[in-house]
Amino acid sequence: MAPRDTPGDLTGRWVVGIDIGGTNLVVGLVPAAGGDAVALRNRATDAERGVDAVVDDVVRMAEEAVAAAGVDRDRVIGMGVGCPGPLDRATGVVSHSPNLKWRDVPLGALLEARFDRPVALDNDANCAAWGEWWQGAGRGTESMFGLIVGTGIGGGWISGGELQHGCSDAAGEIGHTTVAFDGRLCACGNYGCLEAYASGPSIAARARQGLVAGTESLLVDLVEGDLDRISAVTVFEAAVAGDAFADRVVNDTARILGVGVANLINLLNPEAVVLMGGVTRAGEHLLGPLRTEVRTRAFRVAADACRIVPGELIETAGVVGAAGRFLRSHAAG
Amino acid sequence: MAPRDTPGDLTGRWVVGIDIGGTNLVVGLVPAAGGDAVALRNRATDAERGVDAVVDDVVRMAEEAVAAAGVDRDRVIGMGVGCPGPLDRATGVVSHSPNLKWRDVPLGALLEARFDRPVALDNDANCAAWGEWWQGAGRGTESMFGLIVGTGIGGGWISGGELQHGCSDAAGEIGHTTVAFDGRLCACGNYGCLEAYASGPSIAARARQGLVAGTESLLVDLVEGDLDRISAVTVFEAAVAGDAFADRVVNDTARILGVGVANLINLLNPEAVVLMGGVTRAGEHLLGPLRTEVRTRAFRVAADACRIVPGELIETAGVVGAAGRFLRSHAAG
Repeated sequence: MAPRDTPGDLTGRWVVGIDIGGTNLVVGLVPAAGGDAVALRNRATDAERGVDAVVDDVVRMAEEAVAAAGVDRDRVIGMGVGCPGPLDRATGVVSHSPNLKWRDVPLGALLEARFDRPVALDNDANCAAWGEWWQGAGRGTESMFGLIVGTGIGGGWISGGELQHGCSDAAGEIGHTTVAFDGRLCACGNYGCLEAYASGPSIAARARQGLVAGTESLLVDLVEGDLDRISAVTVFEAAVAGDAFADRVVNDTARILGVGVANLINLLNPEAVVLMGGVTRAGEHLLGPLRTEVRTRAFRVAADACRIVPGELIETAGVVGAAGRFLRSHAAG
Repeated sequence: MAPRDTPGDLTGRWVVGIDIGGTNLVVGLVPAAGGDAVALRNRATDAERGVDAVVDDVVRMAEEAVAAAGVDRDRVIGMGVGCPGPLDRATGVVSHSPNLKWRDVPLGALLEARFDRPVALDNDANCAAWGEWWQGAGRGTESMFGLIVGTGIGGGWISGGELQHGCSDAAGEIGHTTVAFDGRLCACGNYGCLEAYASGPSIAARARQGLVAGTESLLVDLVEGDLDRISAVTVFEAAVAGDAFADRVVNDTARILGVGVANLINLLNPEAVVLMGGVTRAGEHLLGPLRTEVRTRAFRVAADACRIVPGELIETAGVVGAAGRFLRSHAAG
């Protein structure tokens, strides 16, 4: 990767933030001195086209964003990329990403060559957590866990004002901590992972199981009898519409997420837990019973000290955080 | 507490280490430059006698240790105390310790006045973990979780070479993280805490439950039919003697501890997990199946990076760590 040659004064300078997800690719421009992303560009990742096609997209979308924002390209000092891991931050190589189906891809070097700026890579969940810590709901805290609940469940742990990567860049995998050792089978092959209950697909699967067993629910009507069409979104819709079964599924989800958050609080005693990702957009319907479960399970001295709040950068945490990681590794930020 | 007026050169200097447990009180002398404790003194804590009696004991045992070790008292630069919390490290006040049944006790000030040296206080589990990190099985690591499995289950988390206390001094409570959200009732009132399965008393309780249900076992003979006399020690003895039921109880314990360790590894990605406390003295009988469970549940990149080892300072981790905490807070150590 490029040396740390970026000047210290960040006023009026910009960083390109890239969020390469399994589904979507988002690019935006982030003020190096801090602020939300602007000139956002968005498309399907379609990683199966191969890395060259994705690199083409990223560079094109970055140039488009610079033009759309009316920013002098000389003022763009670098590029931060959040990407499903595992990856080697030092060399910028994505070693093997099951989500993208890439292996040993020198993504950092490819983007540096094409965009002519230094590039920093980090894990996507770490970037999202860092975004909320730097410019979102975790601003001003010394310690924050960012919990991302969507298609999967991941997290990023910030302590002492720095992202904690762990000794082999594998920290933060809250989705694959066990909350029920003889519980539901997880996609990872183990039993009782938090993700096996509370990710979007797991919420849908739990609802389907109840309905196959014969429970009556508005959900069946919502999907016109085709249970395969049930998603976390339809479950939340049915719950909001007053369906008792869907409400129970949502409550169970909130409770089990509360178990995971209580575990974080008893173990790490952070100032804040910030909830991100699609599932957490259910808002107070989910947050209310989640907080109740945390109060039940966490030590009072730790629970009292911890804010449990939704993220503020709904669409942009990953982009902002990726840019922020570039600044932390290459500049004074 | 006293100012940081201790000279930087620690050669030939000593620190008194105190481990005030719910059951035992241990005092020893620790070389400030590093090394195991010497001139150990040991007695029942009997905290219900009140704090003055315990302070009397501590000071007398400390003076005895100095005399027994033949150390010039001028070479003793301070005192570190590990004590069940919660406590306020800055003021040296034990705010309320359920284990000692003390409330708002200015332990630090009392000991400073009586022993005429600066005193540092920290949580007992933190001290034990710090002892293993500073002078025991965690030496040389950048990150280590010390997991103490005894009458209760506690822990201390060291990252970046510093103890992580959390934002309200409550971090490390691995015993009260949930491993089975609808599981066994814990003494804390919640369901499915790690401690509800794997602490000494919980191991004994699980064994008793099986026997009350009519399972045949050598255990019944070992306690001459009086099931109340079953302890974790008798369960391990029966398992070593080849009893199938006791062996299953031990294996389940190891497996559930493995779940807790896998959770630590997936979340924190430490270089080492050091197992301490009475239960872990069962050695490979416990460590073997525990490591197998960790391999099953933890991400390979994190599990490969983490040594899971027994502590080295079997009787002295708390004393050594308490002295080490004094050095970290008052001297250059």
